[in-house]
Amino acid sequence: MKKSLLALAVLGAFTGAAYAQSSVTIFGIVDQSVNYVKNGGTHTTSMQSNQLNSNRLGFRGVEDMGGGLKAGFWLEAPMSNENGAAGGLNFTRRSTVSLMGNFGELRLGRDYLPTFWNTAFDEVNGANGLGTILNLGTLNGLGSGASTLVRGNNVIGYFLPGGLGGFYGQASAALGQGNDNNKYAGARFGYGAGPMDVNFAYGQTKTALADFKTMNLGGSYDFGMAKLYAVWNENKFGGAKLDLYGLSVGVPVGPGQFRAAYAHSKATGVNPYGTSYDGQKADLVEVEYVYDLSKRTSVYTTYAHIKNSGGAAYSVLPGTIGSALNDKSDGFNVGIRHSF
Amino acid sequence: MKKSLLALAVLGAFTGAAYAQSSVTIFGIVDQSVNYVKNGGTHTTSMQSNQLNSNRLGFRGVEDMGGGLKAGFWLEAPMSNENGAAGGLNFTRRSTVSLMGNFGELRLGRDYLPTFWNTAFDEVNGANGLGTILNLGTLNGLGSGASTLVRGNNVIGYFLPGGLGGFYGQASAALGQGNDNNKYAGARFGYGAGPMDVNFAYGQTKTALADFKTMNLGGSYDFGMAKLYAVWNENKFGGAKLDLYGLSVGVPVGPGQFRAAYAHSKATGVNPYGTSYDGQKADLVEVEYVYDLSKRTSVYTTYAHIKNSGGAAYSVLPGTIGSALNDKSDGFNVGIRHSF
Amino acid sequence: MKKSLLALAVLGAFTGAAYAQSSVTIFGIVDQSVNYVKNGGTHTTSMQSNQLNSNRLGFRGVEDMGGGLKAGFWLEAPMSNENGAAGGLNFTRRSTVSLMGNFGELRLGRDYLPTFWNTAFDEVNGANGLGTILNLGTLNGLGSGASTLVRGNNVIGYFLPGGLGGFYGQASAALGQGNDNNKYAGARFGYGAGPMDVNFAYGQTKTALADFKTMNLGGSYDFGMAKLYAVWNENKFGGAKLDLYGLSVGVPVGPGQFRAAYAHSKATGVNPYGTSYDGQKADLVEVEYVYDLSKRTSVYTTYAHIKNSGGAAYSVLPGTIGSALNDKSDGFNVGIRHSF
Repeated sequence: MKKSLLALAVLGAFTGAAYAQSSVTIFGIVDQSVNYVKNGGTHTTSMQSNQLNSNRLGFRGVEDMGGGLKAGFWLEAPMSNENGAAGGLNFTRRSTVSLMGNFGELRLGRDYLPTFWNTAFDEVNGANGLGTILNLGTLNGLGSGASTLVRGNNVIGYFLPGGLGGFYGQASAALGQGNDNNKYAGARFGYGAGPMDVNFAYGQTKTALADFKTMNLGGSYDFGMAKLYAVWNENKFGGAKLDLYGLSVGVPVGPGQFRAAYAHSKATGVNPYGTSYDGQKADLVEVEYVYDLSKRTSVYTTYAHIKNSGGAAYSVLPGTIGSALNDKSDGFNVGIRHSF
Repeated sequence: MKKSLLALAVLGAFTGAAYAQSSVTIFGIVDQSVNYVKNGGTHTTSMQSNQLNSNRLGFRGVEDMGGGLKAGFWLEAPMSNENGAAGGLNFTRRSTVSLMGNFGELRLGRDYLPTFWNTAFDEVNGANGLGTILNLGTLNGLGSGASTLVRGNNVIGYFLPGGLGGFYGQASAALGQGNDNNKYAGARFGYGAGPMDVNFAYGQTKTALADFKTMNLGGSYDFGMAKLYAVWNENKFGGAKLDLYGLSVGVPVGPGQFRAAYAHSKATGVNPYGTSYDGQKADLVEVEYVYDLSKRTSVYTTYAHIKNSGGAAYSVLPGTIGSALNDKSDGFNVGIRHSF
Repeated sequence: MKKSLLALAVLGAFTGAAYAQSSVTIFGIVDQSVNYVKNGGTHTTSMQSNQLNSNRLGFRGVEDMGGGLKAGFWLEAPMSNENGAAGGLNFTRRSTVSLMGNFGELRLGRDYLPTFWNTAFDEVNGANGLGTILNLGTLNGLGSGASTLVRGNNVIGYFLPGGLGGFYGQASAALGQGNDNNKYAGARFGYGAGPMDVNFAYGQTKTALADFKTMNLGGSYDFGMAKLYAVWNENKFGGAKLDLYGLSVGVPVGPGQFRAAYAHSKATGVNPYGTSYDGQKADLVEVEYVYDLSKRTSVYTTYAHIKNSGGAAYSVLPGTIGSALNDKSDGFNVGIRHSF
């Protein structure tokens, strides 16, 4: 027990852990854009976050414990800066503690799930913006209630170590903790060498009536003058199935990049609750130019178009007013992305 | 695609942006005071934040991109430290990204609005404490529902560059995004040279039935032995109008400052919903002493008094129990302000 | 009034306080564990925070103002990392501003209360984990509604200075601010010298019908090969009384510590609302091993067992599913604790 004044101040922290200040990295992205969106007959202009990269504020650090062993933490919060993150800051993007060594990495906490990564890495848009394939159905849970489309709570994750000749992989299990919609198991494997990368993932979530299953396969090849991306993603819930195909390209142009993307989504069948997804179809085309003012700061402009049919209602900006059911969704934006 | 263990850890961040650690400034203020307030027949003693300066925790940074071009971000959260900011941390004080150059500054996000600044800069209290003119009606929306009395969401702001011979200015437009109470346009202009500063601002918010309009004019003059402040603010909503006049002074005394303020508020007319504000009157007097223990830390004590009549019910500490309708509101406090 | 572009950017902060960047320490703990708990006939496996130390993220700093005078702030947030702190970040663990000098420390804000400290310092578990005495009734308010079992809002705290020959002490008053359940007064005194430490605390909270009172007495002695802890805590609300006795030991074993704890809890009488606590009894035993990978990172494993009778329903992991009413509660966990 310490007795001095300052000691009491420190005791406020009240832990046996040593408090030597360690290296904490603060990082973040503020990405604001003005977006014009037309869904069917209605249109709206709005300020949005996340259109080139997802807004975030984070704290992370790695401790080298010697003998190849490391420990690390990662706390990353989303931010809707247009309203001051009015919903409140939390670390729902990622909040994990890790042990890392020759064996790979063991990671505990809330984290991304293996089945999400390919849909982000195997398209030029990295899961952001008006033209991302995420807007065409990868996040469609087909009425299953699964909460595991992107991230999971209570995740026990394992990552293969480096140095496996280009092979990489990870596996994750998320504990349900009283809710089967959270209960997930999945894995992702890939191979990357030089300009080439291919990867595959599979995961399933328990849910009330049946397993919700996601499978995807994709890759990229960097030709230098252009980098090509291709991805296939399938979500299944009982008899309902949604297949999405994405093809995209990034072309270095001046101090920036020209991007173009095409995607096609097609659903079939009936889910265990009797909801039919049969015949829902949508196509997406997108062009974008990202101009890098510096390594950390870019301006960008995007045009994207979705055509829905057979009961599909995808939008280039999900959540904005006006339905695009069996109709077109068009979007145009101009934005600034600053990272720190 | 990176394949090593550490790369996977980094990929968790999952952005194309470079993550070289940049200079992030953490800043903040913790200001706690004990306040005795008597409104009419009731009184209460409470611990409060914000009485000398507003409590806050913030993260900000500026990137110099060369050629006079800069990018910056600013994330600033309010904090009610007496209850541990129990409502949750958010960046509703300000959360913006900026591009700055010879052209001035373009700023996007949630920000202060032009019409607020004069009411803060043209009084010695800077919009804080028992004796601020804000307690006498500048924040009175006259039943309009306008959300734009201090800050706005979805703000596109422009600031004139420096070097204009003392002239400065800014203009802001806030997108409504489905709510006309958020839809604002306004501007502020001023001139400052040596000890003198004058400024003017005008802004209007759409709202459901009519535009809510704010206009203000004020300034300050530093005589050395004392700095004088004067401000006039008018809020209008249809036929309802509220005029506020503030006069205040700051006198350096020892390692600190003596402050005195007087304000008068008068409302007339009926708003578009039929609510009458006619005849509401209030006067405020305040004295305060701020003793600077250091540049960053001060202790202070304040006495303020408001006299309401004609249906006015202003309080020296808005939100505390007991109404001061047509009655007096008296307040006394002692506090500590520490900034970092 | 400043007029340049950058000045305007800075004015966004809008305070008279100097903004020279000062030393802000970011600190935290991420502690994740997998816990198997069996309460009576039901069992569950879950990921949990806080089982070795409480998860937190904090910002703090001290300003030396010369002449022995210091100012400081402390902002500390809890974090449930398994769900990304989904409830939102706040500083409800502690958020204070302090003045410190030869006179001791004056501290304002939300803070720990004196009566909590002995229950944390006088057991080897420091108020965390499956085997802490907190799980056996120190947090049982006996139906009083008192919100002051651990921390208080609106706290005015005073701490004795160091250099009193081993004597230390603190006193706190929490303002009710409209809720008597918050209105607390209490003090803690102790003496520590060499391997020995003893301490005593008393506090009471107003509440609606009667004062809720807490008293505790405890200490520790470090024999080198083992450190012994003993504590007695009594909570009283009208005729209802709960006494808790805790005995625990920490034994250095290799690069870590073996821990064992025993506690006994016994309630008697009827509270002012007519609820009887008479005859509620519980016993707790716990063994734990903490293996330190470094000063900042540990892995640990715990087994704890509670036996309830006479209407008691304590659990080794409060809040998990399944009641242990008059039954056993068993828990086992494995975890990682990383501090930064």
